[in-house]
Amino acid sequence: MNSMKCVSAPDGSPAGKGTLHDLRDLIERKKKGERLSPGDWKRLVHELMIGRADQRQVSALLMAACLRGLDEEEAFQLTLAMAESGRRLDLSGLPDPHLDKHSTGGIGDAVSLVLVPWLAACGATVVKLSGASLGFTGGTLDKLRAIPGLRTELSEEEVLRVALEVGAVIAAQGSDLVPADKILYSLRDITATVDSPALIASSVMCKKIAAGADAIALDVKVGSGAFVSKIEEAKEMARLMVEIGRRAGRKVLAFLSSMDQPLASRVGYALEVEEAIEVLRGERRQRLFHHCLELGSGLLVLGGICQEAQEGRQLMMKRLEGGQALEKMAWMIQAQGGNPKVLEDPTIMGRAEREHPVRSVFQGWLQSFDGRRFGWMIRRLAGSGRDGRPLDLTAGAVMEVGLGERVKKGQVLCLLRGRDPEREEKEALACFRIGEEPVEPPPLILDRIP
Amino acid sequence: MNSMKCVSAPDGSPAGKGTLHDLRDLIERKKKGERLSPGDWKRLVHELMIGRADQRQVSALLMAACLRGLDEEEAFQLTLAMAESGRRLDLSGLPDPHLDKHSTGGIGDAVSLVLVPWLAACGATVVKLSGASLGFTGGTLDKLRAIPGLRTELSEEEVLRVALEVGAVIAAQGSDLVPADKILYSLRDITATVDSPALIASSVMCKKIAAGADAIALDVKVGSGAFVSKIEEAKEMARLMVEIGRRAGRKVLAFLSSMDQPLASRVGYALEVEEAIEVLRGERRQRLFHHCLELGSGLLVLGGICQEAQEGRQLMMKRLEGGQALEKMAWMIQAQGGNPKVLEDPTIMGRAEREHPVRSVFQGWLQSFDGRRFGWMIRRLAGSGRDGRPLDLTAGAVMEVGLGERVKKGQVLCLLRGRDPEREEKEALACFRIGEEPVEPPPLILDRIP
Repeated sequence: MNSMKCVSAPDGSPAGKGTLHDLRDLIERKKKGERLSPGDWKRLVHELMIGRADQRQVSALLMAACLRGLDEEEAFQLTLAMAESGRRLDLSGLPDPHLDKHSTGGIGDAVSLVLVPWLAACGATVVKLSGASLGFTGGTLDKLRAIPGLRTELSEEEVLRVALEVGAVIAAQGSDLVPADKILYSLRDITATVDSPALIASSVMCKKIAAGADAIALDVKVGSGAFVSKIEEAKEMARLMVEIGRRAGRKVLAFLSSMDQPLASRVGYALEVEEAIEVLRGERRQRLFHHCLELGSGLLVLGGICQEAQEGRQLMMKRLEGGQALEKMAWMIQAQGGNPKVLEDPTIMGRAEREHPVRSVFQGWLQSFDGRRFGWMIRRLAGSGRDGRPLDLTAGAVMEVGLGERVKKGQVLCLLRGRDPEREEKEALACFRIGEEPVEPPPLILDRIP
Repeated sequence: MNSMKCVSAPDGSPAGKGTLHDLRDLIERKKKGERLSPGDWKRLVHELMIGRADQRQVSALLMAACLRGLDEEEAFQLTLAMAESGRRLDLSGLPDPHLDKHSTGGIGDAVSLVLVPWLAACGATVVKLSGASLGFTGGTLDKLRAIPGLRTELSEEEVLRVALEVGAVIAAQGSDLVPADKILYSLRDITATVDSPALIASSVMCKKIAAGADAIALDVKVGSGAFVSKIEEAKEMARLMVEIGRRAGRKVLAFLSSMDQPLASRVGYALEVEEAIEVLRGERRQRLFHHCLELGSGLLVLGGICQEAQEGRQLMMKRLEGGQALEKMAWMIQAQGGNPKVLEDPTIMGRAEREHPVRSVFQGWLQSFDGRRFGWMIRRLAGSGRDGRPLDLTAGAVMEVGLGERVKKGQVLCLLRGRDPEREEKEALACFRIGEEPVEPPPLILDRIP
């Protein structure tokens, strides 16, 4: 209102507002619920990238975006501008199709560990770049690091080389990939503007677009162990991400899947790698197996390897039973510097110091499970890396009952592993709600879009 | 979401959010439209004052407050916390009643210059602390500085001494008065969160409360030459300010007054002082005279000097006609170091280098006037102080027609004064809308609350 610069604004006011690096006009318009233009979003990202944007202004803009919302076109434009803010992975030298997957994060979500080599065994190239773990969820990179020697910090050349040789690679998303998203994300974190569907969708999709795949499966988790607990919110976000991908020329398929209990029956780092290996060895009891089969067959159709999901499932089962999926896992581990002996002997990842059973004090049925609380408990078991010590990658929990199952008094609900598992017994116990009525466990896949 | 500190939040998450200087929980709650507690507002102001608040978080909170609103209690609590953030003026050593007035800002608003000595002549103590000019409006302090020698930067002791000796003082609000408001205001300015009724009301009222008066008249300007152009918005703000004052134990009266054209018939610095002097000399033609009489009589009733407005008007007229009002002005000017000869000879304030008439190119009636644009034009005429040179306090405009008046082609609409008035001729002309239909000029006072 009383800034004193030299350019005249339309009302005759002397205005710093007229200068490019002052974002007041963007904030003002978004505050009123107006739609920002493609040029506005480009300008925001540009100002962020050259370090000229005032972070206080960006914070206010983020809050206005949170409360007023972004329409599809705006979310797409923001995504595009962020995707172009850094290096983009060029997969054109690798065999088609290029598949990718992304999970919005949950408990015991070991899908990438299984699906990346499995899809490669089906003839696809799968380059999976992962970020750091979010909040109460375990990160794929931390899980992989449980394998002795395995490196996830690969250069772009290494990523492309492993992808070319093996067809499968899981690496840390480099700092030069979508740097604008990193800046925005850290601002969103401190300004309590994380939970905007459009901002979440843009943040996810800019990474996927920059990572270069043609066909992308999104695994949108819903439930107590996910960031979104309401199905309608999750659907809105899924639709938006699919639409953003479509506008960017990518094929995108979103699954809405239940995160009301851990997906894998083991939660942790080495423990999830162990379970992933079992699935790749052909163990079909696991929910993790069924989930991967659904996502994977969808991706094979999307990428044009199969005509329809049933054909995709058959191809996947063939590669699983023929051992090629496990073989791809071995090659991938080896190419990334890890010891492939882990596939025969998971104990080379080490074993937790102690194990402690958590027993039910009631009898009845397991009616619900507080995944978020359980996730934080697991992080504490592993030490969260916050005391300077590295994460205890052998820590975690082995689940002994699932939703809807009958529980007797004194029955083991889960086994905690770590340096000091007794300390978390009460906290773990509080995550299990045992009731007197039997309940139906939710289906794994709640919906898919489109 | 992924902050890594040591305290546990209720959901078991490791949380910096739990620490006092992290304002995320406040932002989160205001974002959801929840009401923040008195303790929350105190905490915000405290963190601002000790410099520990993250300005990016405060920016996001301001935007959430703008879009979700504050209720009366919240606005009051924020006001109170800000009023307590610095020194408060203690008027208890001065004769009762202690009156104050505040204008939300407009064009040709010379009310303080007239009313402060006039009310003192009626037996009140009037300590008026003013801030810097806002945007397109001229500041009272700049106007006073047109009087040779007059100082507005007074110490608290000087303010109290002049108030005790004269009963009237107009000084710059010191930097130790409501420092929290200064911090918040500058953040609001850059984050486009100025126009929130609750934030405006709190910012005004914290200053009035800290300045110590018992009875306060608010002059809420509405129209093209004010910050608020819609009467309903202005009413909401006025009601809120009156209520905040009431909760703080002050008597507050708000006038909604038209700012569709300059209040004084001269706009500028020395020019407005000249007009104020004319009013104090008993010149009754001016709208400025009538406006001051209304506000002043209301304040005399509010402060308990008179029983009702008509009695207030009579007392004021008596003091005007008896010369005591002008005499108070002379004493006040002298006590603040200024030359009281200005009252007989306004030319000692200097005379603009040039004068240039702005003539109508149409005939008809003056239907509307763009006060904001005119205000910015006046600031440019005076140099805006932005080229390092001091403001040209002799610059300004003499209005020659008022709203609803008949205008002939070639008739002078106003006279521009300054170093280079020709340059602004076109801009000035564009502020006058001449139409073919006669219109009724708006009343001076549109409403009063309560």
